Amino acid sequence: MARAIEMAAENARTGCGGPFAALVVKDGAVIATGVNRVTSSNDPTAHAEIVAIREACRVLGHFQLTGCEIYASCEPCPMCLGAIYWARPARVFFAGTRADAAAAGFDDSLIYDEFQAPLAGRRIPMVPLMRQEARRAFREWQARTGRMPY
Amino acid sequence: MARAIEMAAENARTGCGGPFAALVVKDGAVIATGVNRVTSSNDPTAHAEIVAIREACRVLGHFQLTGCEIYASCEPCPMCLGAIYWARPARVFFAGTRADAAAAGFDDSLIYDEFQAPLAGRRIPMVPLMRQEARRAFREWQARTGRMPY
Repeated sequence: MARAIEMAAENARTGCGGPFAALVVKDGAVIATGVNRVTSSNDPTAHAEIVAIREACRVLGHFQLTGCEIYASCEPCPMCLGAIYWARPARVFFAGTRADAAAAGFDDSLIYDEFQAPLAGRRIPMVPLMRQEARRAFREWQARTGRMPY
Repeated sequence: MARAIEMAAENARTGCGGPFAALVVKDGAVIATGVNRVTSSNDPTAHAEIVAIREACRVLGHFQLTGCEIYASCEPCPMCLGAIYWARPARVFFAGTRADAAAAGFDDSLIYDEFQAPLAGRRIPMVPLMRQEARRAFREWQARTGRMPY
């Protein structure tokens, strides 16, 4: 964790992006690292945890981080928490909290709050459309033999 | 939306990934598309919305989708919903629901439920560690002149 915090501080100092870093560890060894690169790569999804998870999966050649641990310099935002559930590591350690992030000007807490709001009452409106037609795509999925669940 | 649903069905049919697709529209024109590529690219973050958002930001040369609309063939999972909040489009249209996704074997609903659970009671344990030390990274961020908020 000390290394993640040092990388986060360094990332803020050099102007590469926000003060966040993450490491993925497997069997006691660091297999991937990531720092926030949102502004330097024009990619709003380039949070430290996402960058580290993508790199770790590339290294492992698999879309799951079974048996891995993630060390994040700050509590994951909702996007990164979602990514963690899809990657399914064994556990996650984090240092700063969502309150610390909010105090430094990051929206994490606001986004967590939005998850509780009904669709119609959200800051970004979510509009349902063509649900019946969409079932076709799920039927194609379920009809396919040899589909790979994830 | 009809095009997003067709792309989602095609993606399931060809075995590229899950039955999901998304489009980003600006000023009435499609500027980016994405389909689910989790299993074909070994990337658990390669959901349709994430792929489309990254591509749209690349096209626009910016980390925000101001004034854009997203058409998703299914209600975004928590990871993608988080990414949408960071990208800040004007609005989101979706066709299938999280219940439809769950019925087809996708974890979206389970992950939404986990967001309500206390840290200690989650399926993937979240362990706080070294919070005081982590404040250093935020101090570096706040001390930096010319930092770019996102």
